[in-house]
Amino acid sequence: MADLTHFDAQGQAHMVDVSAKHVTARVAVAVGAVVMQADTLALVRGGNAKKGDVLGVARLAGIMGAKRTADLIPLCHPLPMSSVTLDLTPDDDLPGVQIRATVKTTGQTGVEMEALTAVSVAALTVYDMLKAADKSMQITDIRVVLKDGGKSGRYEAT
Amino acid sequence: MADLTHFDAQGQAHMVDVSAKHVTARVAVAVGAVVMQADTLALVRGGNAKKGDVLGVARLAGIMGAKRTADLIPLCHPLPMSSVTLDLTPDDDLPGVQIRATVKTTGQTGVEMEALTAVSVAALTVYDMLKAADKSMQITDIRVVLKDGGKSGRYEAT
Amino acid sequence: MADLTHFDAQGQAHMVDVSAKHVTARVAVAVGAVVMQADTLALVRGGNAKKGDVLGVARLAGIMGAKRTADLIPLCHPLPMSSVTLDLTPDDDLPGVQIRATVKTTGQTGVEMEALTAVSVAALTVYDMLKAADKSMQITDIRVVLKDGGKSGRYEAT
Amino acid sequence: MADLTHFDAQGQAHMVDVSAKHVTARVAVAVGAVVMQADTLALVRGGNAKKGDVLGVARLAGIMGAKRTADLIPLCHPLPMSSVTLDLTPDDDLPGVQIRATVKTTGQTGVEMEALTAVSVAALTVYDMLKAADKSMQITDIRVVLKDGGKSGRYEAT
Amino acid sequence: MADLTHFDAQGQAHMVDVSAKHVTARVAVAVGAVVMQADTLALVRGGNAKKGDVLGVARLAGIMGAKRTADLIPLCHPLPMSSVTLDLTPDDDLPGVQIRATVKTTGQTGVEMEALTAVSVAALTVYDMLKAADKSMQITDIRVVLKDGGKSGRYEAT
Amino acid sequence: MADLTHFDAQGQAHMVDVSAKHVTARVAVAVGAVVMQADTLALVRGGNAKKGDVLGVARLAGIMGAKRTADLIPLCHPLPMSSVTLDLTPDDDLPGVQIRATVKTTGQTGVEMEALTAVSVAALTVYDMLKAADKSMQITDIRVVLKDGGKSGRYEAT
Repeated sequence: MADLTHFDAQGQAHMVDVSAKHVTARVAVAVGAVVMQADTLALVRGGNAKKGDVLGVARLAGIMGAKRTADLIPLCHPLPMSSVTLDLTPDDDLPGVQIRATVKTTGQTGVEMEALTAVSVAALTVYDMLKAADKSMQITDIRVVLKDGGKSGRYEAT
Repeated sequence: MADLTHFDAQGQAHMVDVSAKHVTARVAVAVGAVVMQADTLALVRGGNAKKGDVLGVARLAGIMGAKRTADLIPLCHPLPMSSVTLDLTPDDDLPGVQIRATVKTTGQTGVEMEALTAVSVAALTVYDMLKAADKSMQITDIRVVLKDGGKSGRYEAT
Repeated sequence: MADLTHFDAQGQAHMVDVSAKHVTARVAVAVGAVVMQADTLALVRGGNAKKGDVLGVARLAGIMGAKRTADLIPLCHPLPMSSVTLDLTPDDDLPGVQIRATVKTTGQTGVEMEALTAVSVAALTVYDMLKAADKSMQITDIRVVLKDGGKSGRYEAT
Repeated sequence: MADLTHFDAQGQAHMVDVSAKHVTARVAVAVGAVVMQADTLALVRGGNAKKGDVLGVARLAGIMGAKRTADLIPLCHPLPMSSVTLDLTPDDDLPGVQIRATVKTTGQTGVEMEALTAVSVAALTVYDMLKAADKSMQITDIRVVLKDGGKSGRYEAT
Repeated sequence: MADLTHFDAQGQAHMVDVSAKHVTARVAVAVGAVVMQADTLALVRGGNAKKGDVLGVARLAGIMGAKRTADLIPLCHPLPMSSVTLDLTPDDDLPGVQIRATVKTTGQTGVEMEALTAVSVAALTVYDMLKAADKSMQITDIRVVLKDGGKSGRYEAT
Repeated sequence: MADLTHFDAQGQAHMVDVSAKHVTARVAVAVGAVVMQADTLALVRGGNAKKGDVLGVARLAGIMGAKRTADLIPLCHPLPMSSVTLDLTPDDDLPGVQIRATVKTTGQTGVEMEALTAVSVAALTVYDMLKAADKSMQITDIRVVLKDGGKSGRYEAT
């Protein structure tokens, strides 16, 4: 079974040495969702028009959150990012909000943590803005659906 | 249907005025989980002994993350915190890691966002430390299970 | 002529001791403007509808900026804030965008720096979002128009 | 009329993709001023000698502020900076303090936001240190006077 | 032998619950030194006059560093601070620079970590500004010399 | 005698222009120690097993601290880091804990400040976790023992 790269031979946490890795174009896409009551989702839809743009605020929080990834995740390398995009879509079937973040870099490590952090912070912000109306919301199914660039090759969730 | 408190009458986002709210003892408990392959969970368990303490690193990241809540969530009030506790428990039935955060304050607003942020950052850190072994992990079921103190009274998830 | 309170008798910078000051309700209002070409302002107005909400992004940046005041201004005390509100209004006479920030606290020092920082960060964000269209914009007339609470009494700009 | 690059076709804010832009040497110069009463300016000049170095503190705050640009401005790319310089000059004609910031990078995007942020934070710090003596100060005329490097070529304010 | 308060009964790190502690006036004083070659110290003294104010820059960095304590030290509570003062004194006997930080709060926990962090960041900044001239400097003897307020009473180093 | 590079000809602090420096692989190693009573060191050793992992928490804090270097040290350039490693070793002869940090980058400036900051934050964290048991601890002998890469060549402490 594989050893964990974030620990050395003595089991001590360290920031992995990436100095021998190539600087290549890399991309990662992560998704997630906030599940809520149908009435709460109606508030979100209403907000797009007049009452307050919940999804716009959450999108911005997610973009800014991506830039804080290395501050939050102890062993993450600080990274330049060449692009961060978030899509937040109301979904009646959940009911709730689907979140999708795409992050690109030209660097020595992948950006899946940045994409996952963007989704997480956007989801937390959706919760924050709606919590006065609905305390039972769930943040769920946060995962990586695409990772490309770098030595380990393309990963695509099935 | 209730209006959203984070927007004013024109639908503009603002940080809600809490100056008239009472300073009281408040507590919030949030939970969540990282679902992974059984083999990956075995790596986590092994780490508790010798190969590297995944759960210890994630616990610390979650505590530090709680302190960054108002930096991350746009309309959150900056708050003192009198206590932050995280429990991370391997669970063979998921299989994966269960996360539970308890945050206390003596202040004018609740701390459910701090508890949710602690769980989210701990979960992201678990993902980060195990992603070389398993890219298909999911962060899931993040929600508030208890909130008490303040005018709106006790909320307990059923 | 008054000495400057941020320096001691030897002229050395320090964070002023406020431990003897009363905890009272305090408020500050600051204003400012971004002056631009009439064509640029037309882009802003268009954005409120469909092309992208420049003022909404800047409002949020200003609120988040208020929370970073003590990080940015060396001798500012870290402060709780009980409310932050920003108004951004297109003004054809400038032409440009008028910005107004209101910050409240219950604490030992005033919040005029928080209000000024909110206006400044909102103005910088307006510039950032429009700079591809207009490099000649000016951020101007940032000042305190109201300060109340605390020992020094009410200040209102004439 | 040009669309705004910070919004996509649906009008949603995003961090623009710069991965195809060239890594080149770039420079930006921004200026601004803090206008104050003549008596207040006399305090600043006195401080250069013995009573406390207002301009030295503000210069340092501006340099540190430049490093926080991507934290403050939502859609700004995080950037390395190869040089940050600030000049603060007392000016009897205003009366007040003239501020000028020069920022250099070798990267994929320009640094005018970093230069504008440096000027803004330096100006806010000047205000903070003098506000006990003069509440009527104004921060004014913040703008880009030079931008060079990158595809869009040299911009110089007239 | 006493158990460590930062760990629970299972040995897991947590942020200690201080919600039952009294809000009292508290003060802490920490000291430390940067030892250097006599020639390097001469550069520092020269700088007070004309060549650049090493001690002024380090004093400011120490004050700002105190405000980042809870961001840096994992289990530290975020705290208001009512006063931060730093003294940096050239000392020919070391030879080097003596640093002394005094921090006050009115809160539920002590501020010795804030005072120690202020000394550490000031010392690092002295090193940074002089390292082109002297790589052999040492940061040394950082310790608490006074702590007062709170239940555990007055501590004074002998 | 050499002028200080962090000040210009007028003695004004600035962030040195490194745009002409080569991008090369660079490494720095810094060390330091926390001296404590023998009984306190016994608590640390006990913690490795069951009572709480003081050294593990401090190691993580040091790694995260290295990433905050440019935020803390006013004239430090923000830098990517390709690797950060910390070793914390109990030493009965002190008695206390020896700390050693190794930082690597591929960039235009050295990383000795990052290594020194990692050691300092790890030492402060050791102090924080043990201070309930021993207030007389000292953080001491923080210095650079190796610096390599870049124009100034290899420096090794004797």
